[in-house]
Amino acid sequence: MTDLTTAPATSDAETGATGSPVDAAAAAARTAFAATVASTAAERAAWLRAVADALEAARDELVALADEESHLGPVRLNGELSRTTNQLRLFADAVLEGSYLEATIDHVDPSAIPPRPDLRRILRALGPVAVFSASNFPFAFSVAGGDTASALAAGCPVIVKGHSAHPRLSARTAEIVAGALAAAGAPDGIFGHVTGREAGVALVQHPEIRAVGFTGSLHGGRILFDLAVGRPDPIPFYGELSAVNPVIITQAALDARADELASGLAGSFTLGAGQFCTNPGVVFVPAGSGFAERVATAVGAEPAAVPMLTDGIASAFAGGLADLAARDGVRLVAGSVSQQAATGSAVVLGTDAATVAADPQALFAECFGPSTLVVEYDDVDQALDAISRVGGSLTATVHAEPDEDVAEIVAVLTEIAGRVLFAGWPTGVAVSWAQQHGGPWPSTTTIHTSVGMTAIRRFLRPVAYQDAPAHALPAELRDDNPLGIPQRVDGVLVVPSGA
Amino acid sequence: MTDLTTAPATSDAETGATGSPVDAAAAAARTAFAATVASTAAERAAWLRAVADALEAARDELVALADEESHLGPVRLNGELSRTTNQLRLFADAVLEGSYLEATIDHVDPSAIPPRPDLRRILRALGPVAVFSASNFPFAFSVAGGDTASALAAGCPVIVKGHSAHPRLSARTAEIVAGALAAAGAPDGIFGHVTGREAGVALVQHPEIRAVGFTGSLHGGRILFDLAVGRPDPIPFYGELSAVNPVIITQAALDARADELASGLAGSFTLGAGQFCTNPGVVFVPAGSGFAERVATAVGAEPAAVPMLTDGIASAFAGGLADLAARDGVRLVAGSVSQQAATGSAVVLGTDAATVAADPQALFAECFGPSTLVVEYDDVDQALDAISRVGGSLTATVHAEPDEDVAEIVAVLTEIAGRVLFAGWPTGVAVSWAQQHGGPWPSTTTIHTSVGMTAIRRFLRPVAYQDAPAHALPAELRDDNPLGIPQRVDGVLVVPSGA
Repeated sequence: MTDLTTAPATSDAETGATGSPVDAAAAAARTAFAATVASTAAERAAWLRAVADALEAARDELVALADEESHLGPVRLNGELSRTTNQLRLFADAVLEGSYLEATIDHVDPSAIPPRPDLRRILRALGPVAVFSASNFPFAFSVAGGDTASALAAGCPVIVKGHSAHPRLSARTAEIVAGALAAAGAPDGIFGHVTGREAGVALVQHPEIRAVGFTGSLHGGRILFDLAVGRPDPIPFYGELSAVNPVIITQAALDARADELASGLAGSFTLGAGQFCTNPGVVFVPAGSGFAERVATAVGAEPAAVPMLTDGIASAFAGGLADLAARDGVRLVAGSVSQQAATGSAVVLGTDAATVAADPQALFAECFGPSTLVVEYDDVDQALDAISRVGGSLTATVHAEPDEDVAEIVAVLTEIAGRVLFAGWPTGVAVSWAQQHGGPWPSTTTIHTSVGMTAIRRFLRPVAYQDAPAHALPAELRDDNPLGIPQRVDGVLVVPSGA
Repeated sequence: MTDLTTAPATSDAETGATGSPVDAAAAAARTAFAATVASTAAERAAWLRAVADALEAARDELVALADEESHLGPVRLNGELSRTTNQLRLFADAVLEGSYLEATIDHVDPSAIPPRPDLRRILRALGPVAVFSASNFPFAFSVAGGDTASALAAGCPVIVKGHSAHPRLSARTAEIVAGALAAAGAPDGIFGHVTGREAGVALVQHPEIRAVGFTGSLHGGRILFDLAVGRPDPIPFYGELSAVNPVIITQAALDARADELASGLAGSFTLGAGQFCTNPGVVFVPAGSGFAERVATAVGAEPAAVPMLTDGIASAFAGGLADLAARDGVRLVAGSVSQQAATGSAVVLGTDAATVAADPQALFAECFGPSTLVVEYDDVDQALDAISRVGGSLTATVHAEPDEDVAEIVAVLTEIAGRVLFAGWPTGVAVSWAQQHGGPWPSTTTIHTSVGMTAIRRFLRPVAYQDAPAHALPAELRDDNPLGIPQRVDGVLVVPSGA
């Protein structure tokens, strides 16, 4: 770790056929890490804010580029860019607040068994991180998205693998990010950008890479996960892979507001041509309610669909829908499976809980696109049994009336999902302290989140200092607490006033 | 998850050849989980304290049994039992304190981009956990050890795979733990005990098991790690596998107190026949200091060695030592490689940093037993270069004088270890809030700790509730905070007075 050659702060090359762009970026990231791991909170906050400012300054250019490559439209893309810069600034705030470090001080206690020395624990940056851009969020889950923001906030250099769905935007964003970091005084090599499938594979296996952030398909994610954990020195792979995001609507809710629920669902599953990992893919409703037809009607009133992000996504969507629609007991309620899929037009399918019970895995495979499967149930227990077979999901939603006892429903939803909604629809993921974006396999691969302030925990590891002189300690672990951050002292959590 | 059969709270069978004891314990654990995940902090604290009380009540019987099977002696074993019961009680305290839940409340904020609903996040029990007992800590890292205590504290049922080095102690401890839990009102199936290698393999692969805690060898741990991450639904494998725990002594420290350092090292690496994962296995000292000979002299004054824990450990120790001693540039300073290894007698080897640089991996393989390798260095940079090649370790220690600048040394030690010591020796792991027992691969497999209060984080996953009515929320997430735990409210960490 002492003999690495320096390399440009950003390396940008197609395909990585020789592996050298990855090697260069990784070596540069390792060199940078010696500085970033020792950087102050104030420095890291300034870096994050500089990136946010630079992206805002290039807003018109970036949104236009993103629209050309993604067809997501300027309204959505402007919102997504704002979300991205807000996210960078929120991580800057969190770094300054300091509680994410879990600073903990235990003074000497000779009476403990075994006797306790002076112990002080803090979370420390893990090392260079590889981040895989997502196709469906060209800003918020891509070059300067949540994985990058949280890794930089932690003090980890980042190498982004750009997505082939928006190559020009990716390269231009990387250029702006690298420039902003350099201008803000961040060390050379703190940010790199590579492209191509081979480069991605090489990154996950590279000895200098200490963790991976990934948002994408179950198939591709599993391949990279297996590479990460199969290394001679396994590294954490933080993947967000797949979710069908089940919804259950009670009879009382349906009686009270069927049309409102139908139009809410229609708006949610068709948003962005359905290309959200939180898309509500399966909706349980009381049998005989005609809810699927109401949704079909509501979809008809929605604006025209936008083209899908890539030909590959359109083709996978069409294939998945065709498989699903061809199954016994599944009926097509709205849209056309064979022709409309490629254009991203909405599709509503219907079935019943008994059909689901016969082959839950096949019926609950994620169809990434604007479709939803309405499942009619005879009683709530039957629906909950089917939901418990869905597998892990990012979200689960219950629509009930305020006076209903939903304890049993909530227990099942909490078992399978990382976010449980009691109103609204799962698309739209707020960036905040309390957000959780991650749930049981296959929705994510670990017990952490990829959205919200606690996402930073993924790129940190604990270090304890035993009997250290004050001058050898990080400022955050000193008794005089010069930065005024929350500390746990001899077991008691202390938040300085004014912190 | 709704159709599981019930089974006895404890299943105890040899080998698990048919797999049925594992199936029965897993099914019982899954049934129990429905109750434990919804249990209150007060209930879990009572369970943990009941287990501690029951173990204390059986102290004489358990220590006698442990001594028969482990030869570790009543002084050490009484201390280890106290450490184990203290650990259970500390987790009870931590559960009541409540900050481990990371309770976080974000109220509605329509001005955020995207708009923020009411979001409330908490950590929730993961599910049934498999715990592998260790050979070298029959109490503290076995049936009722740290993994079990932290998993129960989290609200996870536990199935322990007993260790073949202390089968009778394992079975008897399991009986006491299960009895205490039942008497305290814990649900049937919260605790199970199985034995045999096949049962261990079946546990790691069992669909109902959601996480694994393991302390043991790199070889065995890697096999189980690969099984855990190779499942159709990978689960976290928290393994503590191997460490050589490097030490560096500066010239100034050696000039000031060579004999004190030599006797301190001798006491540490021979403690418990060297069978600690924190054993200082490689010690860097200035060339020409004759330190290895001083250590040899100090070892001669130590009490007679105790037998090693198992024939397998003795044989692996003898083999590892023989390989090491046969290498060019390595000399035997004290002890006998061929004969004394099986009895656990101390061995001191010597070499120099140039020899280390030629093949660091071979020289730094963990020899689990009472040996240490003294490496002479010409200058500190040479030593640090070698230490950075050691790989991840649980601990790293620097012995310097108070006025020395150790910043460069500390930077390297912090890079490779989870606990950095500035005085004393790494054996002895205090159980406290600030403890960290875990470091880069291969010392542990994840970014978490297996000792100390934060070990509980391993068995929890986050769940966020969106727009939930108060009656559907866990008490810890309510605005009125009835349990008085620390909460983060709209970004501000609030510790109730008197908490």
